[in-house]
Amino acid sequence: MAKGITARSEDYSQWYLDVVLKAEMAEHSPVKGCMVIKPTGYGIWEKIQQHLDRMFKETGHVNAYFPMFIPESFLKKEAEHVEGFAPECAVVTHGGGKQLEEPLVVRPTSETIIWDSYRNWISSYRDLPLLINQWANVCRWEMRTRLFLRTTEFLWQEGHTAHATHEEAEEETMKMVRIYQKFAEEYLAMPVLVGRKTDREKFAGALHTYCIEGLMQDGKALQAGTSHHLGQNFAKAFDVKFQDKDKELKYVHATSWGVSTRLIGGMIMTHSDDQGLVVPPRLSPRPVVIVPIWRSDEQMDAVLGCARGMVEGWDPLFYYLDDRDQYKPGYKFNEWELKGVPVRIEIGPRDVENREVVVVRRDTGEKATMPMDGLREKLEAMLVEIQANLFTKAKARVEASTHTVDSYDEYKARIGEGGFFRVFLDHENPEVEQQLQNDTRSTVRCIPFDAEEEEGACMITGKPCKYRVVAAQSY
Amino acid sequence: MAKGITARSEDYSQWYLDVVLKAEMAEHSPVKGCMVIKPTGYGIWEKIQQHLDRMFKETGHVNAYFPMFIPESFLKKEAEHVEGFAPECAVVTHGGGKQLEEPLVVRPTSETIIWDSYRNWISSYRDLPLLINQWANVCRWEMRTRLFLRTTEFLWQEGHTAHATHEEAEEETMKMVRIYQKFAEEYLAMPVLVGRKTDREKFAGALHTYCIEGLMQDGKALQAGTSHHLGQNFAKAFDVKFQDKDKELKYVHATSWGVSTRLIGGMIMTHSDDQGLVVPPRLSPRPVVIVPIWRSDEQMDAVLGCARGMVEGWDPLFYYLDDRDQYKPGYKFNEWELKGVPVRIEIGPRDVENREVVVVRRDTGEKATMPMDGLREKLEAMLVEIQANLFTKAKARVEASTHTVDSYDEYKARIGEGGFFRVFLDHENPEVEQQLQNDTRSTVRCIPFDAEEEEGACMITGKPCKYRVVAAQSY
Repeated sequence: MAKGITARSEDYSQWYLDVVLKAEMAEHSPVKGCMVIKPTGYGIWEKIQQHLDRMFKETGHVNAYFPMFIPESFLKKEAEHVEGFAPECAVVTHGGGKQLEEPLVVRPTSETIIWDSYRNWISSYRDLPLLINQWANVCRWEMRTRLFLRTTEFLWQEGHTAHATHEEAEEETMKMVRIYQKFAEEYLAMPVLVGRKTDREKFAGALHTYCIEGLMQDGKALQAGTSHHLGQNFAKAFDVKFQDKDKELKYVHATSWGVSTRLIGGMIMTHSDDQGLVVPPRLSPRPVVIVPIWRSDEQMDAVLGCARGMVEGWDPLFYYLDDRDQYKPGYKFNEWELKGVPVRIEIGPRDVENREVVVVRRDTGEKATMPMDGLREKLEAMLVEIQANLFTKAKARVEASTHTVDSYDEYKARIGEGGFFRVFLDHENPEVEQQLQNDTRSTVRCIPFDAEEEEGACMITGKPCKYRVVAAQSY
Repeated sequence: MAKGITARSEDYSQWYLDVVLKAEMAEHSPVKGCMVIKPTGYGIWEKIQQHLDRMFKETGHVNAYFPMFIPESFLKKEAEHVEGFAPECAVVTHGGGKQLEEPLVVRPTSETIIWDSYRNWISSYRDLPLLINQWANVCRWEMRTRLFLRTTEFLWQEGHTAHATHEEAEEETMKMVRIYQKFAEEYLAMPVLVGRKTDREKFAGALHTYCIEGLMQDGKALQAGTSHHLGQNFAKAFDVKFQDKDKELKYVHATSWGVSTRLIGGMIMTHSDDQGLVVPPRLSPRPVVIVPIWRSDEQMDAVLGCARGMVEGWDPLFYYLDDRDQYKPGYKFNEWELKGVPVRIEIGPRDVENREVVVVRRDTGEKATMPMDGLREKLEAMLVEIQANLFTKAKARVEASTHTVDSYDEYKARIGEGGFFRVFLDHENPEVEQQLQNDTRSTVRCIPFDAEEEEGACMITGKPCKYRVVAAQSY
C-alpha cells in the first residue's frame, strides 16, 4: 500500500484506478464517461503516435482528416454496420441555434463518411491502392466506462484502404495486424496473441477481423488492436467502382484497422506494480530522471553545476533534470517512481567529489553506483535491457497463465483463475459462443494464426474440431 | 488559366477555390460547412504541427487532452464567453439512444472544460505556472464557410496556462503571440502585423487579445493567430484559487492562445500563383521531387537505376522519386507544379550519360542544369534561398499595399483597392468602429505594438489620437 495505491492482490480494479490517478495519467471528467488525459498520460500517447505513424508511413500510408460529424443516413447504408453502431451514437440535433434538418452522429468510426468521399477519388485502377490513415477522436456511448480501457470519447487512429482485388485487401489486412503485433511486442513490451475473431466478434460490416490480444496481470484478456477485411461491403453501400486494366467496372475492396488510447491501459496492466506505473523505455518521453540532492545553497550550486555539466551534449529528450527547489529529494524519488520513469539518477555532494552517481532501475528496483564518465552509453544500454526485461517477464507470465483444457467442467471450474484457455470449441455456431458467455462470462478471444492442426471435440457440444481456439474473460 | 485554374486577376475567390481543389488540399464534405483535408493538405498541417509543437515544448509547455463535449451549464459560467460562443454551438441532445439530462455542446474552444479541471489541479503556488497545450478539433457553426479559412469543424491547437500574477500571465500572452509571429515569418514565410485587438474585436471573456494579421494577395487581411490575457475571469467563474507564498488565497491568472488550419489558407493566399500551389520549403513534407524520363524499358532501367543511386544516403523525407509508370513525365510535371513542391528535378537518358540533372524552382520557374556530384548540398542551399525569397517577395507586396490615409473620404474611396490602412481612429468608442464597418465593410485589424507616437485626429469623429491603428477589409 505505497503512496495510497491499493495492492494488486487486494483489489486489482482499485489498484488500476489508483495507478492511473496517482501517476496523473488521466482522470474522470464531469462529462459522463469521458476522461481528461493529463500530461503524463498524453506524453505516452505522443510516443505511441510517433512510432506507429512512422511504421504506417514506412509501409506507404499517408494521413488525412475527415469530418467528425456523419449524417445519420450514411450510417444506415451498410446494414450490419448501423446495427452494430447506432445504439452507441451521440447525436447532434441542433447547430447554430436551429434544429438540423438531418441529425448528425459524432463518428463512432469513419467508414461511412470516408467511403462517401472515396466514391469521388477512385475511378481507375491507377487510383489504387489508396492507403490512408486518420488520427482522430471518436465517440461511442458506453454504459460502463473505465479510464483508457473504455471511455465514451477516445483517441485513436483508423486506417482506411482501397484495393483492386480481394487478395490485395487481404494482404493489407494481414500486414497491418502484423504491424500492431510488432508495435505491441517491441514498444509496449506486451506479448500478444495474433489471430482471427470469430464471426460473432468481428467488426460490424467486415468479412473478417484480425486482432491482437494481450493478457493482463489479473488474467483477463484485452483486445488491443483490430484489422478488418471489409470486402466490397462499403464499396457497394457507397457505390465506389473503378475501371480495371481490363476496362471492366468493378467494386473496390476495402480494409480498415485501428488502435486507440486503450493501448495505454494495456501498457499499465502489463507492467505496473504496487509502487505505481512502469513505463517501457521506448514509450517514455524522457526515460532518465536526474534528482540532485543538497542540504545547503552552497551544495546546491555544486551539485546542480556538476549535473548540468554531466548532461552536456545529451539529447534533451533523453533525460529530465529535476532542479525544482520547492520539493525535497524524497518527494521527487516518490513522484518519479509513481510515474514509472525507467531510470532514476541520484547525485549528491559526495557523488560530485567522487565523479559518480547512483542509478536506480524502475523495473527491478536495483541500485548501482556508476562513474560519470561514459555514463550516457551505460544508460542507453540499460534502457535496452529494461525494455527487453519487461517483455521477457510479461511473456513468462502469459505463458504461465495459458492453459490447455479439454472438458467443459474443468473450464468452468478454472476460468475464474484467469488466463488464456486453449480449448476445442465449435466457434462457427454462434449459439455455442452465447452459451459459453452465459455460463462463464468468457468469450473466444481469437483463432490464433499459429493454431496447429489437432483433432478434438468441442468441449460444449462434442462436435469434431480441427484446432484449438483461445477463450478468456476479458476487458 | 492553366490546368483549369481561374486567373487571380479574373476572380480571386474562384482562383483560391480552384487551387485548393486542383492541388487536392481539401474538399467540401456532404456535412454542411465541414471539409475533408486530403493527404496533400494534411501533410502541410503535420509540418505546421511538428514545428509549432517543438516551439511550444522549448518554452516549457506540455500537451494534454480534454473532452470534446462540454456541459451547456459550463459555458454559461462566464457571461461574456457564453454570449460570444453560444450562437455558434453544435448541441448533442441524445446519446446511447436516450435523451440526455443536460445537453452537451461540442467544444467551440475549451476554456470552460479546462478551467473546471484546473480547479482540482491547482492549490498552491507550487502548482504554478501550469503550461498546457491541446491539439484538437473544434466546432463553430458558421453561416458562410470557405475551405481552410472558415469551416464548421476545424483543427487547431489551444494553449491554456495558469499563473500566480497578472504580470506573469501578461508575459506569457506576449511570449506566445511572438512565437506565432516567428512561426508565420520563418515557416509560413508570411509577413504579419503584430499588435492588440480593439475591445470590440477581443476574445469573448478576455481582458485583451493580441494577434498576428497577414495580408493576402487580394489586399484582404487574415487574422492568423491570437493570444488572450484572460485575467481572473475564468478563475472566478470556476473558483480556481491558490495559496500564495504569503499564505493568502488568491484567484489564478489565465491565458489562452491558438492557431488553426486557417494558417494553410493564409499560406496559399500569400504565395500561390495562377499555376497552382506554392509551398514554402520548411512546410513541404518532401521538398524535392525527382521525375525520371524514359521512352523505352531499357531507358527506364538506366534512368531509374541512376536516380536511385543519386539519392542513396539522402533523408527519405527530403525527396520523392516519382517512379510511377502509369503516368507520363508531362503529367507528373504538371501535378507537382500544381501541388507546389518547391524544387523539381528532371532526369533523362542524356542526363544519365552526362551525370547531370535539370533543376526547376517552383517559386521563380527558373531552370538550371546541375552536376549530380554535390547535388544534395546545392539543393539544400536552394531551398533556403526559396524560403527567403518567398518571404522577401511577400514582404515587398505587403509594404506596397500599406497605405497611410488621413481623411475618411480618401479612406472610403480607397478601401476597395485593398491593403492595410494606417489611420487615426477613436477605437475606444465601439460606435466609431461600428460606423467604420457599416460604411466600408472594414474593421480595425490591430493596434500594432510598434505604432509610433503621433498626434492626429480620428478620421471619423475628429477626436485627438496619439497613434495610428491599422484597418482593412478582412476574411
